[in-house]
Amino acid sequence: MAPAGEESGAAGEAMVAQGPISNILIIIAMQTEAMPVVNRFQLTEEPEPAFPKGVPWVRYHGIYKDLHINLVWPGKDSNLGVDSVGTVSASLVTYAAIQALQPDLIINAGTAGGFKAKGSSIGDVYLVSDVAFHDRRIPIPVFDLYGVGLRQAYSTPNLRKDLNLKIGKLSTGDSLDMSTQDEATIIANDASVKDMEVTFEHHLIRFELNGSWHPCLRF
Amino acid sequence: MAPAGEESGAAGEAMVAQGPISNILIIIAMQTEAMPVVNRFQLTEEPEPAFPKGVPWVRYHGIYKDLHINLVWPGKDSNLGVDSVGTVSASLVTYAAIQALQPDLIINAGTAGGFKAKGSSIGDVYLVSDVAFHDRRIPIPVFDLYGVGLRQAYSTPNLRKDLNLKIGKLSTGDSLDMSTQDEATIIANDASVKDMEVTFEHHLIRFELNGSWHPCLRF
Repeated sequence: MAPAGEESGAAGEAMVAQGPISNILIIIAMQTEAMPVVNRFQLTEEPEPAFPKGVPWVRYHGIYKDLHINLVWPGKDSNLGVDSVGTVSASLVTYAAIQALQPDLIINAGTAGGFKAKGSSIGDVYLVSDVAFHDRRIPIPVFDLYGVGLRQAYSTPNLRKDLNLKIGKLSTGDSLDMSTQDEATIIANDASVKDMEVTFEHHLIRFELNGSWHPCLRF
Repeated sequence: MAPAGEESGAAGEAMVAQGPISNILIIIAMQTEAMPVVNRFQLTEEPEPAFPKGVPWVRYHGIYKDLHINLVWPGKDSNLGVDSVGTVSASLVTYAAIQALQPDLIINAGTAGGFKAKGSSIGDVYLVSDVAFHDRRIPIPVFDLYGVGLRQAYSTPNLRKDLNLKIGKLSTGDSLDMSTQDEATIIANDASVKDMEVTFEHHLIRFELNGSWHPCLRF
């Protein structure tokens, strides 16, 4: 979900894959962000039997060239009917999807807020070099670093060259607006783009789930 | 983890159980909060085979009277060595523990910040009547309610009477400090206590994982 930035664009984050990629997991926070991808790749909605009964998580599946594509979004809040945005829903659905689908590559796609001061314009597509949180302030030595949770994305020089994307740092938080404290941390994080879901994936990826890294890519 | 409040106490939240309770899951965010419970119930550390390889999550197990007790905490951040506090870690470990252990009752125990203005004192033990987030500001109609995520805890009149606990509302956020915006939302949430992990459980519980509710209790 794109939080309030000066301009609206798309954010990207990448990790290099090790070995052949045939099974791709796309995680998208909002239905309106997901449907263009679903339609473009002609994916069809299929229940995922490994997801617990009762969760609102939605899975689409299809084949594109020699790739298996699974797109998962957290679905609608069952009480309020709005998209289940934010880091908690994103963490849970990504964890469960990794466990169920064992992807070779995770793509987190969606809109993000961009900052004019960092050269962002509406419609820009970013490949993210670093990610961090801006709303986990824990002013205790070392815990402060844990709260910010800075992670450097893996280098993807070929991707950067072939797609000619803008490169920038991304800052994540659970609010759409930007408080004074958030803004100060976003500036400290040197972020070009701001969203509400990305950093959780690095949180997950660092666990080395099932003993292997799950490379992650974002547009 | 207890965030900065005017006083420090303990927070409690309860949901009534349906049917007999024999399998209890205790979720605690920090090692220093967990160890007194581990020692009191003479629990022993046991790996949980259903947890993915590489996660820092720690499980203790034991028997108390006719109850199976599992205590799980998110463990130390593998890079920084500090306790993995906050809602993302708590969500993931609780989800995984529910899937692995199928508890009849979840107890989330730990310290919390209390507010003098609401009558809290150091050492108070609270049973929480309602929970909400104070750091998910999404100023769009309906999304605003999703962000706050207010949930009313189930009524536990016998527990309240037998244990003679204070009753109060709890507000959760990922920061230890309290920004102006957080404070305004905490006041709007009418919170007596503030922590960094609780509300996620209601987020999980509402999913009706595996078709049944997982009653939740907090001290």
